[in-house]
Amino acid sequence: MELEKTFAEIAENILELLDAKKYISARQEVLKLNAADVAEVIGDVEDEQGIENAIILFRMLPKDISAEAFSRLSTDDQLNIVAGITDRELDFIIKEMDFDDMIDVLEELPANVVDKILVRATKEERRQINTFLNYPEDSAGSLMTPDYIELRKEWTAGEALAHIKEAGIDSETVYTCYVKDPGRRLLGIVSLRSLVVSDSDTPVAEIMVEDSVYVNVSDDQEKVSAAFTKYGFLAIPVVDHEQRLVGIITIDDILQVVEEEFTEDFERMGGVLGSDDRGYLDTGVFRQVRNRFPWLILLMCSAMVTGLVISRFELLLTDVASLTMYLPLLMGTGGNSGSQASTLVIRGLAIGELEPRDAHRVLWKEARISFLLGVSLSLINLAKILFIDGEPILIGLTVCVTQIFVIMLAKCIGGMLPLLAKKIGIDPALMAAPFISTLTDTFSCLIYFSLASVIFNLY
Amino acid sequence: MELEKTFAEIAENILELLDAKKYISARQEVLKLNAADVAEVIGDVEDEQGIENAIILFRMLPKDISAEAFSRLSTDDQLNIVAGITDRELDFIIKEMDFDDMIDVLEELPANVVDKILVRATKEERRQINTFLNYPEDSAGSLMTPDYIELRKEWTAGEALAHIKEAGIDSETVYTCYVKDPGRRLLGIVSLRSLVVSDSDTPVAEIMVEDSVYVNVSDDQEKVSAAFTKYGFLAIPVVDHEQRLVGIITIDDILQVVEEEFTEDFERMGGVLGSDDRGYLDTGVFRQVRNRFPWLILLMCSAMVTGLVISRFELLLTDVASLTMYLPLLMGTGGNSGSQASTLVIRGLAIGELEPRDAHRVLWKEARISFLLGVSLSLINLAKILFIDGEPILIGLTVCVTQIFVIMLAKCIGGMLPLLAKKIGIDPALMAAPFISTLTDTFSCLIYFSLASVIFNLY
Repeated sequence: MELEKTFAEIAENILELLDAKKYISARQEVLKLNAADVAEVIGDVEDEQGIENAIILFRMLPKDISAEAFSRLSTDDQLNIVAGITDRELDFIIKEMDFDDMIDVLEELPANVVDKILVRATKEERRQINTFLNYPEDSAGSLMTPDYIELRKEWTAGEALAHIKEAGIDSETVYTCYVKDPGRRLLGIVSLRSLVVSDSDTPVAEIMVEDSVYVNVSDDQEKVSAAFTKYGFLAIPVVDHEQRLVGIITIDDILQVVEEEFTEDFERMGGVLGSDDRGYLDTGVFRQVRNRFPWLILLMCSAMVTGLVISRFELLLTDVASLTMYLPLLMGTGGNSGSQASTLVIRGLAIGELEPRDAHRVLWKEARISFLLGVSLSLINLAKILFIDGEPILIGLTVCVTQIFVIMLAKCIGGMLPLLAKKIGIDPALMAAPFISTLTDTFSCLIYFSLASVIFNLY
Repeated sequence: MELEKTFAEIAENILELLDAKKYISARQEVLKLNAADVAEVIGDVEDEQGIENAIILFRMLPKDISAEAFSRLSTDDQLNIVAGITDRELDFIIKEMDFDDMIDVLEELPANVVDKILVRATKEERRQINTFLNYPEDSAGSLMTPDYIELRKEWTAGEALAHIKEAGIDSETVYTCYVKDPGRRLLGIVSLRSLVVSDSDTPVAEIMVEDSVYVNVSDDQEKVSAAFTKYGFLAIPVVDHEQRLVGIITIDDILQVVEEEFTEDFERMGGVLGSDDRGYLDTGVFRQVRNRFPWLILLMCSAMVTGLVISRFELLLTDVASLTMYLPLLMGTGGNSGSQASTLVIRGLAIGELEPRDAHRVLWKEARISFLLGVSLSLINLAKILFIDGEPILIGLTVCVTQIFVIMLAKCIGGMLPLLAKKIGIDPALMAAPFISTLTDTFSCLIYFSLASVIFNLY
């Protein structure tokens, strides 16, 4: 099946058939889709009628696909489905899901629904579910699954393969198997590949790789995804504080983590705080207002400081009126120069290339870059002021000398603030365009008018 | 081995031993590292002496690890190593590498080095290498490897496993195997897991999954990574224009693609064009200037337009001097409001949640959000202007009515421009903070002064 094209056709066809209440033909079409496609179709429905169709479609699914599709839905869609199916169906779906997916679902569903599910679980299941629900969000613990294959050191490759065949668990988790010591500590890992290519009487102990990399259950997910990127693993073992193996994290879950982390940085860089995972269209107007308001009010207050600077120089502005004309240009180039530097440094910090201790290297680099940029932009600007605007040379000099200073200052501040933020434990992404450019505005005005005052001898 | 801690100790120890020329002890330590760690140690060296040590360290490595470590080095570090090893050693390393890694390396190395390598390859190898080198950058073709396991439909699971054991290729590529028809078209996929859990006399044809998702050799890597995120694959088959299977892409390469794509968007959002993969510290000052200059000069020119608007209202500003004081506030809130909207829409486009055809939904949403934000911020601002600044009510009204308009306009432009960019085939990330805020500046001034002219009856 080619991506998209065929899928879009089938999806449209299904929705039409459902609208026409041709359920038997609809079901035939539904069976052509895999779980991810089904989740996309359900996620795309909009109105009341659409939700009703989504529930009908969902109940048509073979049981194994319905569980996987359910785990891929957004929380809103999950709640819609939960409202439309029986408790028994819900129970079945939950039981059919991979353990880590189930935990993700339970974390999002409202307490009364979760209670209904927990009541039907065995005591041991409840205990394990509760342990997993208690791992902090964004920790390795919250990403892992306890479903992994455990092999014994004293087995042969053939025995190990027979055991895997017996256990027969899910595809993502079967490709790396684990060997523990009697204290349940991780002894080594064995890839399914090495079992398959070894002679069947080779001992597991010989194939096993010791000293493998692992993460701690309380490690941040950013650290976990960095390990996947660095080592190219398919799965990584997770140990608790006594070094006991408690679960594994598989690479398919990491792809989502990477996207989440980037989205968070992205939105903070654009001045949106308190983001959520719902996506733009699914986040309501009031929630959007709440996410955007704090940053705007903060930046408005700092813009007021810039206004204060200007008001102190009102007399100067009345005397040399054309000074105001170059204010947007100075504030603009300052802000944009600062954003460039901060963006690159934030990125460098995010991928681990930069550390706060690189501050002097960043500063020295930005100083040279900003000097070159400042001088070249100012010369172009000077020519424009003198020959196109026809302003006197004193105005031109004031503007252009200010511009060089402003660009240099903006780039150095833009490069330093993310490093400082990291050092004192604030998210560096907050030190991006909105904050840096508002901050630079104040400096631009201050430098500009102070210089003008001196040059025009007013004070 | 726990992440980082132990690794950092070993790495430091190795560098010290190399400095002290204790090569035998150094080698013992080096053997504790895996290829990714070795690449990191080599990537961290700085001066002449460091490079020399890096070469010595590299030549100490077991051959299989040296090839993998080499493929993970930056191009600069690769060139340093190439300069320090013999042609025969280089040849060996290249041959030992995974095919897709080799292509990546050959794409970056200078032509004379590549020629030296190609001369030693067989005619068939040269042909294949050249085909792969010709796939456009960022296409599925440039990401894929031709090393995959091909099974025959008529084999049993046991025969298939025996074949895999015989072929015994690399771990990332072995977990999904492929079945082709006589025309070399993709017939179906077989996971190693399903072979292992099936009885050994089950025919491959029975285990095989038909109708699997594939990508085209010319598809953009963004589309490929979206498929991995959506379906959670470990590998995806790549077909050519005649639907023939030509290679596969594995998930470990996709993690890098996702990071690259994000970095590109990130930098464009911060006003840095023409980025490269070198990272902040490795990109020279002149190159940085070149990457940052175009955007700055463009934005400077549009800031000049804002200046022009102001100059048209010079008379007004001389008469009502305190108007200038509120200019930074209006331009600031406008710019930041616009950036928030554009960031969210750019993100929505990047993850495929939004499409240009959602324009009316975005517009309607932004209109409501910006109205609420505009009114609430303006009221706070009005109180400040009247009671703290002690300005007359007319000034307060002018500023606050302008502010509502500016925020609404900025958010609607910020929301629309990325959609428009996508529609006409420009990267939406270019429509981020720097561009939007510079554009909003012009509108802010125009609305502000036009309104003030009316209110103060000057024209």
